[in-house]
Parts: sequence; C-alpha cells; structure tokens
Amino acid sequence: MATKILQSADSAYHYPLLIKQLLTSQQRFETGNEIVSGPHRFSYAEFNQRICRLANALKAAGIGPGDTVAVMDWDSHRYLECFFAVPMVGAILHTVNIRLSPGQILYTMNHAEDDLVLVHDDFVPIIDGIKDELKTVKGYIQLTDDAQVTSSEFDSLGEYEALLAQSDTHYDFPDFDENSIATTFYTTGTTGNPKGVFFSHRQLVLHTLNMVNALQSNNNERALMNHESVYMPITPMFHVHAWGIPYVATMMGVQQIYPLRYEPNNLTRLIREEKVTFSHCVPTILQMVMQSSEAADTNFDGWQVIIGGSALTPGLARQAIEQGIEPFSAYGMSETCPLMSMTRMDPDRRALPEDEQISWRTKAGLPTDLCDIQIWTPDGKVQPNDGKSSGELVVRAPWLTQSYLNEPEKGAELWENGWLHTGDIAVLHPDGCVEIKDRIKDVIKTGGEWISSLELERLISQHPDVDSVSVVGVPDERWGERPFAMIIPRTDVLELDNIQAHLQQYVEDGTINKWAIPRKIQLVNDIPKTSVGKIDKKRIRAQLSEA
Amino acid sequence: MATKILQSADSAYHYPLLIKQLLTSQQRFETGNEIVSGPHRFSYAEFNQRICRLANALKAAGIGPGDTVAVMDWDSHRYLECFFAVPMVGAILHTVNIRLSPGQILYTMNHAEDDLVLVHDDFVPIIDGIKDELKTVKGYIQLTDDAQVTSSEFDSLGEYEALLAQSDTHYDFPDFDENSIATTFYTTGTTGNPKGVFFSHRQLVLHTLNMVNALQSNNNERALMNHESVYMPITPMFHVHAWGIPYVATMMGVQQIYPLRYEPNNLTRLIREEKVTFSHCVPTILQMVMQSSEAADTNFDGWQVIIGGSALTPGLARQAIEQGIEPFSAYGMSETCPLMSMTRMDPDRRALPEDEQISWRTKAGLPTDLCDIQIWTPDGKVQPNDGKSSGELVVRAPWLTQSYLNEPEKGAELWENGWLHTGDIAVLHPDGCVEIKDRIKDVIKTGGEWISSLELERLISQHPDVDSVSVVGVPDERWGERPFAMIIPRTDVLELDNIQAHLQQYVEDGTINKWAIPRKIQLVNDIPKTSVGKIDKKRIRAQLSEA
Repeated sequence: MATKILQSADSAYHYPLLIKQLLTSQQRFETGNEIVSGPHRFSYAEFNQRICRLANALKAAGIGPGDTVAVMDWDSHRYLECFFAVPMVGAILHTVNIRLSPGQILYTMNHAEDDLVLVHDDFVPIIDGIKDELKTVKGYIQLTDDAQVTSSEFDSLGEYEALLAQSDTHYDFPDFDENSIATTFYTTGTTGNPKGVFFSHRQLVLHTLNMVNALQSNNNERALMNHESVYMPITPMFHVHAWGIPYVATMMGVQQIYPLRYEPNNLTRLIREEKVTFSHCVPTILQMVMQSSEAADTNFDGWQVIIGGSALTPGLARQAIEQGIEPFSAYGMSETCPLMSMTRMDPDRRALPEDEQISWRTKAGLPTDLCDIQIWTPDGKVQPNDGKSSGELVVRAPWLTQSYLNEPEKGAELWENGWLHTGDIAVLHPDGCVEIKDRIKDVIKTGGEWISSLELERLISQHPDVDSVSVVGVPDERWGERPFAMIIPRTDVLELDNIQAHLQQYVEDGTINKWAIPRKIQLVNDIPKTSVGKIDKKRIRAQLSEA
Repeated sequence: MATKILQSADSAYHYPLLIKQLLTSQQRFETGNEIVSGPHRFSYAEFNQRICRLANALKAAGIGPGDTVAVMDWDSHRYLECFFAVPMVGAILHTVNIRLSPGQILYTMNHAEDDLVLVHDDFVPIIDGIKDELKTVKGYIQLTDDAQVTSSEFDSLGEYEALLAQSDTHYDFPDFDENSIATTFYTTGTTGNPKGVFFSHRQLVLHTLNMVNALQSNNNERALMNHESVYMPITPMFHVHAWGIPYVATMMGVQQIYPLRYEPNNLTRLIREEKVTFSHCVPTILQMVMQSSEAADTNFDGWQVIIGGSALTPGLARQAIEQGIEPFSAYGMSETCPLMSMTRMDPDRRALPEDEQISWRTKAGLPTDLCDIQIWTPDGKVQPNDGKSSGELVVRAPWLTQSYLNEPEKGAELWENGWLHTGDIAVLHPDGCVEIKDRIKDVIKTGGEWISSLELERLISQHPDVDSVSVVGVPDERWGERPFAMIIPRTDVLELDNIQAHLQQYVEDGTINKWAIPRKIQLVNDIPKTSVGKIDKKRIRAQLSEA
C-alpha cells in the first residue's frame, strides 16, 4: 500500500502511548481526591511523588528496562503504585496470582523470569517454601500492613514504606517503544501449566481510553465513572489488572479506595463509610457483601457494580436491586485485557418491565468501541446478528494479548485465522447485545454445526420423567461428535424413545437441528461431580464412551 | 532502552489504528438513528453501504493509496461519507477552505497536489476561474443539492449520487500503516501563504477516543454526547474536520443532522424540528441563530453548544443561558486536530453563583486526557499552575500536526524544543483550568518577560482622562521591546507623566512589572483600524516607530 506516511519535523514529539502519559491527564490537578488504603490517605500530588520514590527504590534494587518485577499483595496503594512505576521505568510487572498452588506460583515465577519480588507478609510462607527453586529472583522487598509484624527472618532488601521514605521524589521517566511489554500474568486452564498473557504500554493506554468511554456511556442516568465517583475495586489486582479500571480511575483522578484483603464485613463497612459509588466483582463476592452482618446497617443505594468472571444470574441481579444496588454485566477474559462488552442502560431499557431489564442486565452487554466481535461457525463462516445463530465468539481489538509468553504454538492456536478465539459460544443480537451460551469445550460439534449441551440439557429436563440430566459429546466416526445424555429419571418407564420423541418437537419448531437428538442415553442414580460440586463432564464423557 | 518488545504469534492481528476501525463500533448495530442532510435520511446500514459505494466510485475515478481527493462542499452527508471513504481507501482527504480567495484556493490545491475534486454547484464558478492553473487535478465529481440545476457545462466524471447509485455496495477496505496521512487542510496566518497541516489515521482515531471522553464527562447532569443525542455541527467540515466531532458521532451511531449551507433561519428550524441536543460553533453563528426570526418560535431548552474559534464572552454566554441554551467553551486550533481543553460542569461548578459559573464557562476549560499543557516563559522555563504566572501555552498530545505540509522549516519552528507552540499567552489555574490571555504576537517581550498588551490597555483605560488606547511593542536595543501606547485622550491635560504615575500603582501592587510602563505615548484623534474594523496593530507599530 503506497499510502503517504506522516513526515514529522525533526523537533516534533511523536507521543508514544506509554503508561506514564496517563499521568499527564486530569489527575495531576488539585481536586481534593485521595487514594485510600488501610490507614493511608494520599493526595494525588503525594501519589505522584510516591511513584517517583518507588522508581528510585527499584533502580536502587538493580531494576532497569527489560527486567521483571513480581508483586504478591492484596489490593493496596502499593499495588497501584506498582501498576505505574514498574512499567514506567521500562520493566515488566508480573502480577502473581496468589490463589494458585505454591507449585504453580513457582512455575509462573520461573517462567516469567522474575528478577525482584515484592511480597506481602501473608505470602512470605509461600516464598519461604519455594525460594530455593526460584531460578532468576535476585531480591525481595517486604510489604506489610503492620510495621510491628516484620518478618525479620526474611532476607529482603527492606520494607516498602521504609525504602520509599528514603528515596528521592523525582524521577525522569524515559520515553521508549510503546510496544514494550508492561505487564504479564498467568491464566489457568483445566489442563497443563498456567499460560502467561502479556500487554504492552500501547495496549494498556488504549484499553484505558476505551474503558473510560464504556464506563461513562453505560448509564445515561449516572455514569459508572465520572469525576464525582468513589471507586473501590473488589476484583483482585493480580487478575487482569483489576480489569484495568485502576488505570481509568487514576487517569481521571477520582477518589479511590483499596480494601486490602477481602473480608466481607470490612468491604461492606468501606462501601458505607467511604461512600463508594462504583465497584466490580465476581458474583460470589457480591453475594458475600450482601450477606455480611454489616449489610444490615448499610444502605447500598447508589452503589453501582459491574459483575464479571461468571455470569450474573437473574436471581442475584434481582436480590441486588432489592437492596438498592445497581448491577451491570461485563464480558472479558485474561487474554482480552479484559474488556469486550458491557451492559448499557439507555432510557429505553430503563422503561422496560423489571423482568426484561434484568434479562438485559444479565446478558454480556454491548461490544465496546473498536472491539470487533464476530460469531463463527466451526468452519469459520460469519453468523448474522440475528440473536439466534450461534457460534464461537471471536474478536479483534487493539488490546488483546498477542500470544502466550514463550509459547508461540499456543499463541498461534489462540489467534487461528487472525482472530482471537474466546472459546465461548454466543449469539449476537441485532441491537449488538452479546449473549454467551456455553463454553466451547461443553458444546458438541456434529454435522458441521455446534450444539449447546446446556441448551439440550434444558430441553431434556423439561420431560416430566427426567429428574436431572447432563449432556456431553462423544466421538462419532460419521458426524465428528454426537450428543449423549446421562439422566437421573423420576420414574422407571423412561427410555431413549421417550427422550427422542420429546426432542423431536424442538427439531420441528426449529429450536434445535436433528443431529441434536441423542442416539444413546444412560440412566443413572447419580451424576459424577468434581470435588467442588461441579458436574464433572470429563468423567461423564469417559463413562459414556465405555457404555 | 532495552525494554522487552511484544512478541506476536504469526497469526495475531496487530490492529492498526485506522479510520475504518471507528466503523466496527456501536454504529454498526440497529438503533433506528439516521444521518439527515437536506431531503436525505439514511440509516446507518445505508450509510455504511454508501461508504463502500463511494470507495468504488473513487476507484473508478482512478483514486488509490497516496492520492489526494479535494472536497468543496457545504456540511452534508456527502462530506461525512468522504470523511470515511477517502482515507479508508488509503487516499488523503483535502478539505478545501471555500472561504479563502480563489487565488489562495488555487495555491492550496496545487500545494496539496489534489488529484480529484468533488465540487458543489455553488463553487463551480471558483473552479471555472482557476482550473486552467490547477497542475495536478485529473478529474471532477459534481455535488448538487438540486438535480435540476446541473452545471452541464462543467466537464465532470459525473454527479455524486448518480455515481454512487451505479457503484457496488461492497468494498474490502485494506489495512495499512496507521501513520498514513488521512487528511490535510490549510490554515491562514496574517502573512504569507496558507500553511498545510495534516493528520494520520492513528491521530484521528486517538483524537476521536479522546473527544468522546471529553464530551461524555463534561457535564455530569447530561453528557454533551450520549447515545440519545441529536448532533448537528455548525462548524464547517472543512475547518479541522468540524472539530473531529462527526467522527465521534458516527462511531457512537447517534442521530446526526447536516445543515448544508449555514442559513440562520434554517439552522434554527433544524434545531427545533430535529430536536437537536448538541452543536458547536463560533460565537458569531450562535448570535445569528439566537437573533434569527425563527428564534422567536423556538424553544432552545436542552440545546448544548460548544463555543470555540473565538472566546465566548460573558455577555453572549448570559444571553444564551437566558434563551435556554447551555454554552460550553473549548480550546484548540488547526494544528492541534483541534481539541486541547473544554469546559467541564461538575456539580460543584453548578452550585456557584451565576456570575462565577459564567466566568468558568468562558474560560478555555480543563485539558483533556493525554493532553499535556505547559506554560512557558520566553526562555522556556515552565511556569507553575498558580493562575497568575503567564507564558506561552505549549502542548504535547498524540494528535498534533507533526509539521507543515512540505514546509519542514516552518514545522521545526512550530515544534521548537519538542513542544508545539500555540502562540497563545495563557495561565493555568491550580484546578487545571486554562485561561487564554492574549496572542503572542500581541504581547511585548521585554527584560526576559512577556507583558500582555491587552492587560496594559485595560489598566491604562482606567485613567479618567483616557478615552481609548492601543498598546504595542516596539524594538528596543537594551530590553528587546518596550511598550508604547497610542491614546485618544478625553481631555487636553493628559501627558506621559500622568500615565506613568497611574501605572506605577500597579507596579507597586504586583499586577505588572516596571518594564510594563511605556516610555512613550502618542496622543491621537483616531486609532488605525483594518477594513473589517479591528484595531490595526501593524499600522500602529509602524506609526509609533516613526514617531
């Protein structure tokens, strides 16, 4: 393409998209807003000084461009400072998933080649157990919420606050390539080792700009984030940078509350006392907050919450609304930085009957700007936005991980045919709404089509003689896969014929196609479950293929 | 800087920031919104098809990557389609300033090396007069608002709507370097030829993301732009892409009204009948709308307007508010794409007494995200944000012209020391508010400091014997420049001594420094004015240096 390329004056500033540029925004002016974390309350002026202090402390610890700094901490002001200072000196921030097993943590720290580890007292025992096997780590900095409880046994370069106190408040952050890696973290699948995703400065800046648009436009009545907001993340900062929202909140200079360790009563107290207006969390945390004993004394009116990670169920949405909370859904994953779509409550949605509003709030929302979402059939045909045609959700956006760290083959699989494959089965409605139907590993690929096992389970369970059911695909020479159903019957009379006849009506009305009818069922007294009580489709698949 | 650079899987999509990506956003879903222009009302689905049709028509006209397409039109759906289709095929859109003299238009079209010209009937006479001297133009497409009035004499490739009708509705827009030039247009100074500025795809996409943030956050009560907005530009589309807001409106998929030629009664009628909620214009246009005869029948309640180009005066702001209009200020220039800062009305600003609110609305507002604004003394020292220390406003942002087209020396001057020099004298308040004080060409550089001629005029005019006054700088061997004042006296007794004594009090209270006291004045009966009634400082300077 012989386009004409920008010709710059020699002295012109090219403005790479770097995380430091987020600090040239609103936050640098006086607003009276603070960053609150445990007993600390910092003004933005102090926060900016602390970023410089931390950069100097990192330098003193031998950290420079291309090095990797791991953090093991609860959600704190320290973590936020690391979100900025570490990438701003040209290093890579590894946000360690402290919920992994020590063995997995060890694997990720060696795989990411961490040079320095900032570790909270609570995680020192983990480090103690693995430190002899850490191959690249050269030093530790101790993080504490209680200066009394210093882990004096622990051989560190010093305690975070002490190191900052003795460091200079000025640091001249350099310019560099905007495609430099800024952050990395690990995502776990059902099999194999955790995989590292990674994001560049450019990607994080673009994700931040996109996120602020999404947060401001999603509620005509009251934006999730405006300059009056009080923000408290309740998604761990090691998990996809707490969805990238701390970058938004900091750029805008709003009041921010960091809750340290998640303790339901403390979270509820903070919401009440700090007048939090906006948070984001997984469904379980929302439930824990609503059921905490402090909740009885708390008026949640005006608290807006984005739910992600798992689907917001209508029941939980209704419960939240009854308590004065306004719930929204968002959709994303570790590989996507994460934001792909979010609920938007326009006035016409607010005018809907409550049931329809809740149904809208519990879908995955509308794709955000620049986020190109398509629904593909197994053979890569693009499905129409008709709210019916399902397929794998694939995506392009400027902030998607470009591979898996040091695993180019897995990266190539993720990006097959130039689109990032989410592994989710979804439909796209004419108004743009994304509705997730299933995980691809739970769908059955037969006759060139995908059949949702969840949908089949729903239909089979409507037969009066069925108590419960689980559907999986098993290999089939002719069709690739065919659905098999494991059923706990209510009666003794249930047979394959009954199920097939029952499903035939749904073939006739177009709900499913004929390949969706199982050719085999197994009647059982019990359906295999995993140790945490989830239906164990892997074991079912094994049993059925033997049957 | 040995940072680690993003390693992409071979199949990963790199997502260049291209104008076509704006069309992957909200606008592609069904909302019922339209693009309205004269008798035309297009759905967004039709609009997207028309962009493809136009791209095919351009291809048929021989236009490809690197070519330049000039447009001479009023604000129309056609212009909006060119905003997208021309850069999306890899060509450069030259938005011709149709208010320039035919000689200047000729200069700009030859300088930009236009290949194809899309020209409205109303501007055919201009083209007729210059076409023999156009060196690079290979063809014309005729634009008309009335198919009856075809300029049959004019040798064009065809009429726009006819060409689109016969073109295919599909076009596979290619990816290319995001630094490719997308648009160019010319800015006129007081001397010399117009200078060309130019913007890349990347710059326009980033400006769009930034603008949508600014428009959504500037009014907590009701965003200037949300998905319910009805948008009508009243800033010509040839002038800095109508401030880039058509790109925002299109990305968001809002209802858009294009008013064609600006006729005050028609503008007012459109605001009323199309229920326009948001526009932007220069002060003169706002005045014309408010004073149009249609205004008497029009309820302007709910119309929000950004004023730029010239300062919004308190008088005009008050008048607008009395008529139900909500005015905001924005600050920018051709070289800056244009947005640098905008008024933000947070709840605490709305709680101010009306006079203070108006004073806030008439300043230049708060810098937008990523827009790094500094105030520099003549020797490049950064002034504090104290609301008092003035200097030249210099800026860095990701969307500033990187030079002047084919004039690298002028580009180097614009970007002296790596910051874009606006030529405006301003102060920055502690809350971030930008207040423009003067144009640099109207300030006096003396003793290493800048003295505002406007400020000096204000102080001198407070002397009871002064009727009116104009202050300019004239060369001075020792101090660089010294201020001289031309005064129309009210009495016969006024002398230099009186003025000096009068100003001494302001030296003593710190308002001005001692170099600000003129050593010479000239008493006159009349102050020289230009043909349009502005004070002619050039002639005054000449007269004073002779005096």
